[in-house]
Amino acid sequence: MSGSVYGNIFRISSWGESHGTGIGVVVDGCPAGLFLNESMIQPYLDRRKPGQTLYATPRKEEDKVIIQSGVFEGCTTGTPISMIVYNENHHSKDYSEIANYYRPGHADYTFDQKYGFRDYRGGGRSSGRETIGRVAAGAIACTILNELGIHVHAYTKSIGPISVQEQTISLEQAKLSPLYMPDLNASKKAEAYLSELMEGKNSAGGIVECIVQGMPAGIGEPVFDKLDAVLAHAVMSIGAVKGVEIGDGFRAAAGTGMENNDGFYYDAEGSIQKSSNHAGGISGGISDGSAILLRAAIKPTPSISGTQHTVNKKNENIEIEIHGRHDPVIVPRAVVVVESMVAITLVDYLFIGMTSRMDRIKDFYRKEDEQKN
Amino acid sequence: MSGSVYGNIFRISSWGESHGTGIGVVVDGCPAGLFLNESMIQPYLDRRKPGQTLYATPRKEEDKVIIQSGVFEGCTTGTPISMIVYNENHHSKDYSEIANYYRPGHADYTFDQKYGFRDYRGGGRSSGRETIGRVAAGAIACTILNELGIHVHAYTKSIGPISVQEQTISLEQAKLSPLYMPDLNASKKAEAYLSELMEGKNSAGGIVECIVQGMPAGIGEPVFDKLDAVLAHAVMSIGAVKGVEIGDGFRAAAGTGMENNDGFYYDAEGSIQKSSNHAGGISGGISDGSAILLRAAIKPTPSISGTQHTVNKKNENIEIEIHGRHDPVIVPRAVVVVESMVAITLVDYLFIGMTSRMDRIKDFYRKEDEQKN
Amino acid sequence: MSGSVYGNIFRISSWGESHGTGIGVVVDGCPAGLFLNESMIQPYLDRRKPGQTLYATPRKEEDKVIIQSGVFEGCTTGTPISMIVYNENHHSKDYSEIANYYRPGHADYTFDQKYGFRDYRGGGRSSGRETIGRVAAGAIACTILNELGIHVHAYTKSIGPISVQEQTISLEQAKLSPLYMPDLNASKKAEAYLSELMEGKNSAGGIVECIVQGMPAGIGEPVFDKLDAVLAHAVMSIGAVKGVEIGDGFRAAAGTGMENNDGFYYDAEGSIQKSSNHAGGISGGISDGSAILLRAAIKPTPSISGTQHTVNKKNENIEIEIHGRHDPVIVPRAVVVVESMVAITLVDYLFIGMTSRMDRIKDFYRKEDEQKN
Amino acid sequence: MSGSVYGNIFRISSWGESHGTGIGVVVDGCPAGLFLNESMIQPYLDRRKPGQTLYATPRKEEDKVIIQSGVFEGCTTGTPISMIVYNENHHSKDYSEIANYYRPGHADYTFDQKYGFRDYRGGGRSSGRETIGRVAAGAIACTILNELGIHVHAYTKSIGPISVQEQTISLEQAKLSPLYMPDLNASKKAEAYLSELMEGKNSAGGIVECIVQGMPAGIGEPVFDKLDAVLAHAVMSIGAVKGVEIGDGFRAAAGTGMENNDGFYYDAEGSIQKSSNHAGGISGGISDGSAILLRAAIKPTPSISGTQHTVNKKNENIEIEIHGRHDPVIVPRAVVVVESMVAITLVDYLFIGMTSRMDRIKDFYRKEDEQKN
Repeated sequence: MSGSVYGNIFRISSWGESHGTGIGVVVDGCPAGLFLNESMIQPYLDRRKPGQTLYATPRKEEDKVIIQSGVFEGCTTGTPISMIVYNENHHSKDYSEIANYYRPGHADYTFDQKYGFRDYRGGGRSSGRETIGRVAAGAIACTILNELGIHVHAYTKSIGPISVQEQTISLEQAKLSPLYMPDLNASKKAEAYLSELMEGKNSAGGIVECIVQGMPAGIGEPVFDKLDAVLAHAVMSIGAVKGVEIGDGFRAAAGTGMENNDGFYYDAEGSIQKSSNHAGGISGGISDGSAILLRAAIKPTPSISGTQHTVNKKNENIEIEIHGRHDPVIVPRAVVVVESMVAITLVDYLFIGMTSRMDRIKDFYRKEDEQKN
Repeated sequence: MSGSVYGNIFRISSWGESHGTGIGVVVDGCPAGLFLNESMIQPYLDRRKPGQTLYATPRKEEDKVIIQSGVFEGCTTGTPISMIVYNENHHSKDYSEIANYYRPGHADYTFDQKYGFRDYRGGGRSSGRETIGRVAAGAIACTILNELGIHVHAYTKSIGPISVQEQTISLEQAKLSPLYMPDLNASKKAEAYLSELMEGKNSAGGIVECIVQGMPAGIGEPVFDKLDAVLAHAVMSIGAVKGVEIGDGFRAAAGTGMENNDGFYYDAEGSIQKSSNHAGGISGGISDGSAILLRAAIKPTPSISGTQHTVNKKNENIEIEIHGRHDPVIVPRAVVVVESMVAITLVDYLFIGMTSRMDRIKDFYRKEDEQKN
Repeated sequence: MSGSVYGNIFRISSWGESHGTGIGVVVDGCPAGLFLNESMIQPYLDRRKPGQTLYATPRKEEDKVIIQSGVFEGCTTGTPISMIVYNENHHSKDYSEIANYYRPGHADYTFDQKYGFRDYRGGGRSSGRETIGRVAAGAIACTILNELGIHVHAYTKSIGPISVQEQTISLEQAKLSPLYMPDLNASKKAEAYLSELMEGKNSAGGIVECIVQGMPAGIGEPVFDKLDAVLAHAVMSIGAVKGVEIGDGFRAAAGTGMENNDGFYYDAEGSIQKSSNHAGGISGGISDGSAILLRAAIKPTPSISGTQHTVNKKNENIEIEIHGRHDPVIVPRAVVVVESMVAITLVDYLFIGMTSRMDRIKDFYRKEDEQKN
Repeated sequence: MSGSVYGNIFRISSWGESHGTGIGVVVDGCPAGLFLNESMIQPYLDRRKPGQTLYATPRKEEDKVIIQSGVFEGCTTGTPISMIVYNENHHSKDYSEIANYYRPGHADYTFDQKYGFRDYRGGGRSSGRETIGRVAAGAIACTILNELGIHVHAYTKSIGPISVQEQTISLEQAKLSPLYMPDLNASKKAEAYLSELMEGKNSAGGIVECIVQGMPAGIGEPVFDKLDAVLAHAVMSIGAVKGVEIGDGFRAAAGTGMENNDGFYYDAEGSIQKSSNHAGGISGGISDGSAILLRAAIKPTPSISGTQHTVNKKNENIEIEIHGRHDPVIVPRAVVVVESMVAITLVDYLFIGMTSRMDRIKDFYRKEDEQKN
């Protein structure tokens, strides 16, 4: 409830600051018998890592994950999995100045208001490095989902005003794009746009889109824990996300019922299908078996080297320029964080969803009983 | 976790279906000593009530709230407050047909997938009547907030493509508008738009905007329970909401850091102020003391009398027309539901926020001790 | 967290005071498809009802349960089940005096300290009537357990110094005993003991023992939510319970490892069996497949008509005699309350326990998938 | 809910196995501004450490705690405090044999039943080393309580049949006793008893008693989260605890109302006092301002070198003798674990208890507001 624990049955506890010992996460509620090792988690962290392109901070951080518990003889044991990524490459002197003023667009002021003081080194707990815990846990969640035939993919939908068109989306192209845009034409334009902004000491935001395939119908709890509600919570909890929408989202608000309703029909095999997916795979807060689609609006990087107005601790109105290694856009690095939060949430609600029907519960325990005898 | 309990310290439990005994809510964690009676809650429910304008279902429902516990001699006792609104005006025959097919845009199909069957009368638990519980609890939350000098106001920001302009917003005009739009010009246009849709057997969606004034800085928990994340959860859990944004939201994603960062300055009294509020009153997941601003995208009413395609239980692809009393737009009635969910969430996080600093906790318990002696 | 919501997946919300509208409970997380009606719940409430024997308050209360939601066409729908028992037979004048003093052994003083005032009519929320909510929910939990082949039985183990001997326990005899003691000899002695106390304007306590048969192995979560820990929580939350023990309990503390360890052996069928059950069916916080055994110590009824010392609101030290209809012992009526809390907790942890192994989760979702195709 | 996260506002997440990297705990919800460093936590861990007396395993473990996050410039920041104690002194070969059989009295069998396999090295997650996380977090909780004038003390009440008499209890003597018994006469007798058992390859259990002084009245939530219920949960969650009682506990069950009720009177200063404390400081689940008193029954150490019967993986009934370094009694080392779980729980409910009255909440936020202006 103090905000660093997330989830119900699949529950993660995150800790760590930008300049402390490291960033860690404890995953409680991971089922036993999942094949797991560090090499399965590292690729997710590598996608989040800075320094990979021109458009991300050139800091070299290894961000090597270490599993400290909960795995024995190559498999999860069902007990908590603690993971840590040690911090490296500290230059605490870089941050000495910012102790005395409030950076616009950062959490410096609100942390001081809440806690009375703050760990000002590199943003402390509000640093983007905090997302390492989400991604390490998300890698485990994705592994569980894959075992169940469910796949979560996110990509950069837009950078500033430059947007990928729906008909051109290709996950293959996303991997080739330095901005993780699934349309290399749009990516080129966005790169030019970013270069321009960098020259102007400015930064950009953008939109991450996430698609989930293979999701069974019937997941999500009606009323307060609708699947879209908990996904919105999950994704909005990522720093810099300022909006979340499911399916057609805000576009649906401008349309009509005729346009927005997804009709049903029986296909050739006699299965029920939807003729469209404006709902984004969730109806009444419950998954309908079609692809889940959501988008997150990410604000422009607040650290810019252009001149800004703020206040310092001497009660002065001052002008500042924030130098150092900062991403002109964090959207491409946020892609895997969105995937992670979506995956963690889906695992939790898939687990919760196992108890919705009495007949299935009876089957489950009868079967278990039979296996024993 | 099964989705009908919401909140942590201020926690509500909702129950009831469209055609059962009634709709109820139990509020646990309401502090003792709050002056409260039914006449303070009823006005909130009246704003949600159908049948008030041409653009809402003409059903006449009293929706009279009864407090069943937790209030003694005019004050809350600190124990659970149970409230009930009895259902009236049942015409179960109206719903006999829909038992056999899946209405597009409704939760019929997903409820069947999740639970194996459903209470098909009037949508059962997925009926809009479920929001009565939210609003009754929200009225109590608003009462608590008002005592703390915090005020939550929502209104219709847009209906279909017709939007209120930011510079014209007037809560006084919202009260005069049948659509709860704070701009009577826009309201007139929207009324015309709705009349046209109704003739075309169609329906509209829209956007609700919510503003919170008087919120202290320092509320919200970093990382997973950021104030914007829990507000997104709260608002997205309302049926028909397909998107939520805070402050500039999706617009921020298209802008630059220069444009989006809110600068700080000392005002004449020596207080720290923000020169803009693109962040919508929340930074790093923590309230910054300025107005909180959020928007919810509400999809068009799915029940339309125009022809739609769906399937029935006889494995047939069929065409249906949904007749009966349905809102051509639910946005105006959703306004008070958004206020309610925001208020409930803010009360919960104001309560959680009381323990963020050791010195304040010591003060609290020292003071209590002194009062006794 | 304010204490009137209990459970995780199977979650109940309780409300109501002795002299308000009634006592209610909302059960969230009951799976769909459970055959349920009021006649299945009423017998449990009847066992808790006062006025049945000489040793219980002669008040005539019907305590008729009404299901208000969550059941459709004879089956649970998976959505919240609200139940209410209306209060009757109010004589508020009976309670006017106690508003001004603190009854020893009651929660009058602590409620005032916590909330600043209290609903003094019949104990308000701290009345024994509060347990109606537990029993109504417990009846549903027992119904679920029975479907899974699990049976919970409690009985009076002792009244004051008179105790049932282990070798004589017979659930059949318990039903014949007015004190619910499974040994009619002990029951006779206890009846004589109670008659004596009643003459002396005094009251007795006792011990309730609870046995669970048919529990599968593997239920309970290691570390903080050990099955014995959550059962202790559940049972200790019943008013008047002052101690809980599992298996040999406090007796184990006085014994040796040789005596206390339960050995294992293969039986004729090749199944693993325990040669004794000192552990009470739980090892390392996890059920081991043998009978779960626990005991609850219940303090003597605090309302006695003998003279007691206390204080009044005029700052006076006074002597009081509490007249009216009070149980000389509440142990027999507490039996079904213990059963209820145990059942509710077991259902919750059986549900949580469904996600402990990856292979079973895969089986569950694969099976579900196959059923659809 | 998977059992390694405990608490609500003050919430701890524990991880680690006997033979993994180490044992860790993350404390979320510790308020900012608490002076804290490792030297304040280490003494608590030292009390739990093995190898200190003849009656504890002679393993030399340093159990040095390291704070990894959440403390900056000597003070807690309000963000998660991660602590780790690295494992040392592994002799995995010691444990190779036990992989193939089930040790009586241990969790080997139930872990296999729950998870399908287990980390058999030193008990894995069910090892007593798991309590390191509780004690490290408990040390922080005790520090917070001390700041509020609340003090938690536990000690050995009995070892096997040898019990400390109530009138002789002296915390000073407890510190001098190798068994942490607050009565050196009893301690001598218990030492002799243990020597005898050790010769007989046997082990003993005992009772830990815990007293809390300075607790304000009004803490604890009525109904399900009564203070005694949550304390019972906390203490029963410690491995080897088989019973918990508050105040007179099981003795109360054998007494009468006259004996058990605590009367009230005004003392010379006009304060309300209780003339006795049979209730153990908690009435109706809420603290009454007097000392809280509880006891935990701890079973005899299951690891004994005497011959025991069990089964192996080859489907054989076998005889085993468990050699190695094991405590003949764990009671003295459990003392600080009981203190820790009590302290963690009290902090949590002191925090929750801050919101029980509207006037205090208004005061709190008004004051905060005034400080700013």
